[in-house]
Amino acid sequence: MLKKSKVKEIQEKVYEALKKANIAITPEEKENIEVADFGLGDLENTGLQLLVYVNTDRYCAKELVLFPGQTCPEHRHPPVNGKPGKQETFRCRYGKVYLYVEGEKTENPHCRPPKGSEQYYTVWHEIELNPGEQYTIEPNTLHWFQAGEEGAIVSEFSSHSDDESDIFTDPRIKRIPEIED
Amino acid sequence: MLKKSKVKEIQEKVYEALKKANIAITPEEKENIEVADFGLGDLENTGLQLLVYVNTDRYCAKELVLFPGQTCPEHRHPPVNGKPGKQETFRCRYGKVYLYVEGEKTENPHCRPPKGSEQYYTVWHEIELNPGEQYTIEPNTLHWFQAGEEGAIVSEFSSHSDDESDIFTDPRIKRIPEIED
Repeated sequence: MLKKSKVKEIQEKVYEALKKANIAITPEEKENIEVADFGLGDLENTGLQLLVYVNTDRYCAKELVLFPGQTCPEHRHPPVNGKPGKQETFRCRYGKVYLYVEGEKTENPHCRPPKGSEQYYTVWHEIELNPGEQYTIEPNTLHWFQAGEEGAIVSEFSSHSDDESDIFTDPRIKRIPEIED
Repeated sequence: MLKKSKVKEIQEKVYEALKKANIAITPEEKENIEVADFGLGDLENTGLQLLVYVNTDRYCAKELVLFPGQTCPEHRHPPVNGKPGKQETFRCRYGKVYLYVEGEKTENPHCRPPKGSEQYYTVWHEIELNPGEQYTIEPNTLHWFQAGEEGAIVSEFSSHSDDESDIFTDPRIKRIPEIED
């Protein structure tokens, strides 16, 4: 559970981070910045901030903002109603992000999962993305990602996005944030 | 027809414009910047520079770069092979762009079409986009756009992009650039 005041505080921090990276958003968009703690109550370690620019039934574009060392937990985008799961491209715009996907395990990965959640991080093929670099994740592929020391801003381009259908490896996780006054 | 040397010169100018707006691209992407003069040989007035980040069969993301006063000519994205035409969202990232679409004619529009091509500009509902502002264009809708005095950088998020199928109001136009040594 996240307090409204905490969400406001984080939205402000995200706004400043976007401004520093020269990414303009409108006041209305600032109010719509989503702060996801995945129900684990440990936002600084397991968390993600998102601004959805557009999400039609055909395509979607978001800006993802991660603070230094923050991790988006392992999940996949399964098929829904007979349609293939979300296909998405992550493009780093600022800072550095380490992306982990299915595939050959990287020896000496740069990142470690958040303490106490290690068992829920099962894929270890590492892709480092610096500004201007991108990677496309095929549907239904397990992936997680962690920001470097400066944090990261990542544009997500994808097919239609339906967060409720995401499947997380960690059974404790609740994808849709619960906010209390 | 565009000379290779001219394309190189323009790619360099686009790279500088992106850098000024804090948008990072890779050296390989710089080489892939498309310079479109639409076959009219008047790039400074009728032209567009594009960098395609990704274009899967489900979604596409591009960065469009326009120099001051440059115009992308009127066109639409028709249905192709039974599939609806491209749906796209323009999001201004830098500068200012005036977008014209079907709908109520705007009195005293900010822009005039390139000299000598006026007859090929038939839609006049004006939408002004400043950094952070965006607009979604439905499939098969006539539209054209012109940069303001500072030029413009516009992210295009869309369904799959298939430039060859674009239909331009101006019959002289060739959408795929022809480059000579």
